[in-house]
Amino acid sequence: MDQTNVTQTLAGWASSLSVNDIPVAVRREGVRTFVNWLGCALGGSNHETVDRALAAVNLFSGPGRASVLGRRERLDELHAALINGISSHVLDYDDTHLKTIIHPAGPVASAILSVAEGRGGAGAGRGISGSDLLAALVVGVEVECRIGNAVYPDHYDRGWHITGTAGVFGAAAAVGRLLGLDQRGMTWALGIAATQASGLREMFGTMCKSFHPGRAAQNGAMAAFLAQAGFDSSERAIEAPRGFANVLSTKQDYTEITDGLGSRWEAALNTYKPFACGIVIHPTIDGCQQIRDELGAATSQISSVALRTHPLVLELTGKTEPKTGLEAKFSVYHAAATALLRGDGSPTAFTDEAARDPAIIALRDRVKAVADPSMHEAAAEIVVTLADGRKIERLVTHALGSLERPLSDADLTGKFVKQADPVLGSAATRRLVDLSWQLESLPRAAAIAEAARLS
Amino acid sequence: MDQTNVTQTLAGWASSLSVNDIPVAVRREGVRTFVNWLGCALGGSNHETVDRALAAVNLFSGPGRASVLGRRERLDELHAALINGISSHVLDYDDTHLKTIIHPAGPVASAILSVAEGRGGAGAGRGISGSDLLAALVVGVEVECRIGNAVYPDHYDRGWHITGTAGVFGAAAAVGRLLGLDQRGMTWALGIAATQASGLREMFGTMCKSFHPGRAAQNGAMAAFLAQAGFDSSERAIEAPRGFANVLSTKQDYTEITDGLGSRWEAALNTYKPFACGIVIHPTIDGCQQIRDELGAATSQISSVALRTHPLVLELTGKTEPKTGLEAKFSVYHAAATALLRGDGSPTAFTDEAARDPAIIALRDRVKAVADPSMHEAAAEIVVTLADGRKIERLVTHALGSLERPLSDADLTGKFVKQADPVLGSAATRRLVDLSWQLESLPRAAAIAEAARLS
Repeated sequence: MDQTNVTQTLAGWASSLSVNDIPVAVRREGVRTFVNWLGCALGGSNHETVDRALAAVNLFSGPGRASVLGRRERLDELHAALINGISSHVLDYDDTHLKTIIHPAGPVASAILSVAEGRGGAGAGRGISGSDLLAALVVGVEVECRIGNAVYPDHYDRGWHITGTAGVFGAAAAVGRLLGLDQRGMTWALGIAATQASGLREMFGTMCKSFHPGRAAQNGAMAAFLAQAGFDSSERAIEAPRGFANVLSTKQDYTEITDGLGSRWEAALNTYKPFACGIVIHPTIDGCQQIRDELGAATSQISSVALRTHPLVLELTGKTEPKTGLEAKFSVYHAAATALLRGDGSPTAFTDEAARDPAIIALRDRVKAVADPSMHEAAAEIVVTLADGRKIERLVTHALGSLERPLSDADLTGKFVKQADPVLGSAATRRLVDLSWQLESLPRAAAIAEAARLS
Repeated sequence: MDQTNVTQTLAGWASSLSVNDIPVAVRREGVRTFVNWLGCALGGSNHETVDRALAAVNLFSGPGRASVLGRRERLDELHAALINGISSHVLDYDDTHLKTIIHPAGPVASAILSVAEGRGGAGAGRGISGSDLLAALVVGVEVECRIGNAVYPDHYDRGWHITGTAGVFGAAAAVGRLLGLDQRGMTWALGIAATQASGLREMFGTMCKSFHPGRAAQNGAMAAFLAQAGFDSSERAIEAPRGFANVLSTKQDYTEITDGLGSRWEAALNTYKPFACGIVIHPTIDGCQQIRDELGAATSQISSVALRTHPLVLELTGKTEPKTGLEAKFSVYHAAATALLRGDGSPTAFTDEAARDPAIIALRDRVKAVADPSMHEAAAEIVVTLADGRKIERLVTHALGSLERPLSDADLTGKFVKQADPVLGSAATRRLVDLSWQLESLPRAAAIAEAARLS
């Protein structure tokens, strides 16, 4: 396609939108996105992936103006964005824009909360309000999901981890708003983001997977700070012949980026994971948990499990013998067995302990999966056969957590509390979750970061 | 291709090679690479691109253990690597691996000198020797050029700025050596580099072009530090179906990476620019300077100039009306006119002043270029017609600075001094250039960084 001014159009919209231009329902979804993200960042904050990243970057951090969520460390805003982005994604428990499989909050929220905190300290004036932060979050999510729509699925099929490649634009736009960039500055920020767009799907199952949203947050934020300093870039970074969309994708549908800005909201389509693993396994876990509820103690009588799913499910999560918790997230076999035996799809279902549990391994090895292109990607059929020959079937067309069966606000609060409690303690957790739901009315967004760290 | 263990093979070689395994001639070329790079970093150190990048990142730097070359600022090693990488490339005057058009030194030397300086301070022990640094430089250059060979030209044609995308591997390998990574650590470092490989050709003519080698230096170094901390990655990041070569290129020739390691040396094939612009214009400048030498005062009588070049020359440098010095580097018309009128191809030929000079503009507009696929990329034919109808022709098949007509050590010293003198003054410049030629025998590599900064 030869559309011009895609980048400038998007930049103009992102830089000039007022919070009041965002419909109430979209803002509400933004708050849900924020609450879910913060809980996940706390839940992941003690993962060894985070420990190792911190050990490496601590030496290079600037003054500690920003919090590492759920921990004692303080870093400069860009490094805090990196670490919090890793924490929020490391359990694969965050959020999903289902049209693109982007996990939108990690790159954006990790960047803006750190920047808000850096500007919210003593002597920094009023700083950034909760309402400013919310508008930046919604705009950032909108920018990354629209860019994702323009290139998905070809871009993803080629091997790009779209949460990293699209996420860096979202972080740049969101931080650009906090810095007050005008259209030209925002255009440069998107350009500096474009030329850092990276993240390979080959990294799935390694620590680099959660590095992607963290680095997208850090790089996008840096792009905005560079643009603010007058560091220039192409002004057609998305649509130029050698720009992002043409170099990283065979599909370029620029109307997805420029049409209906301010009226059609991708940010309203965010969903939140009830299970701590790739979204494509969710229907299977949901169905297996339903079967477990029906079977009760008879789960010990299961002789075999037959799954039927879209081929993508096995392509992404077809590991038959996961050795670690991280690998288990990419095994529909492990997930089915654990849901049937333990009724668990939360982070505890995907630990090294669970991956090594002989009972889970024994059942896992009796799970067979068939790829069926006629199945919808969001569906799964499960047939459990018991030792006595009895069969129990479930066809899940919309899993818990999908747009059709979204987590309620109460579900999100429960998910938050379960993750934050072991890190912050229950009083601080209660206070923080209340504060987070009130994001839009907070005079200082930094108050949330302050309440989410250890002293 | 389905070759396995490409990444691990390369990592094993890069981590275990001893400096004595590098032939003397290759080490000598490494020293030339270093001297040329350092002079360019000093020459570019006061460019506004550097000023703006510094203004943005200063706020986020860790303790100032490493020097910004040619300036007073001190930054942490990773930020210093970024800025020095930008400085060394911003004048388009650095080095070129002609088979891939990679500019090898920027990503690698910028990373390792900063890391060496960070480890060479008081109390840090002996630190890193000149010989260690040289070995790391040669290995880093070898790694990036071999990876470049594996994917060039398809990768470049798709729109990737190969100095950024391949450079990040070179920086990771070189810093990985300084950190003493074993094969597994080096494999992870290359993987963490792979998933950050980025840089779009759309950025040519903007400040983001020199951002690419700077960011490759910074990201590659960070990859090595992360790997050292046990942050893991794919162990097949280059060759896996969704790894670097398959995702970013349609060509994958892995024999270029793994064959002849230690016997065939790409690092010996580096070349150094006599002119401060894209390598494809060099034959034109060389020929125009030869014609100017012949014409003398008669250059004022030129009525037209006809160029014949390979189509790539016009694709890359076909700007007919450059408005700025940066744009002028991408105009073969400007370069020809300036070489004929001023005999200049150095950085002063590509300033905003030169781009606006009415005499240059008037001649530039009388330069016509024809793309001829039968011409070699490294050649140019120039026909100058004078007002009296006289014609002077030159066919340049190998430009000054090519492998066939390399700059001598004395040329490199002259190029260094011309760039460093205005920054450091002549006594310090003389001392530094002598020190740089002695790199291999220096007990402390950090001494060079210390001598290349302002106090």
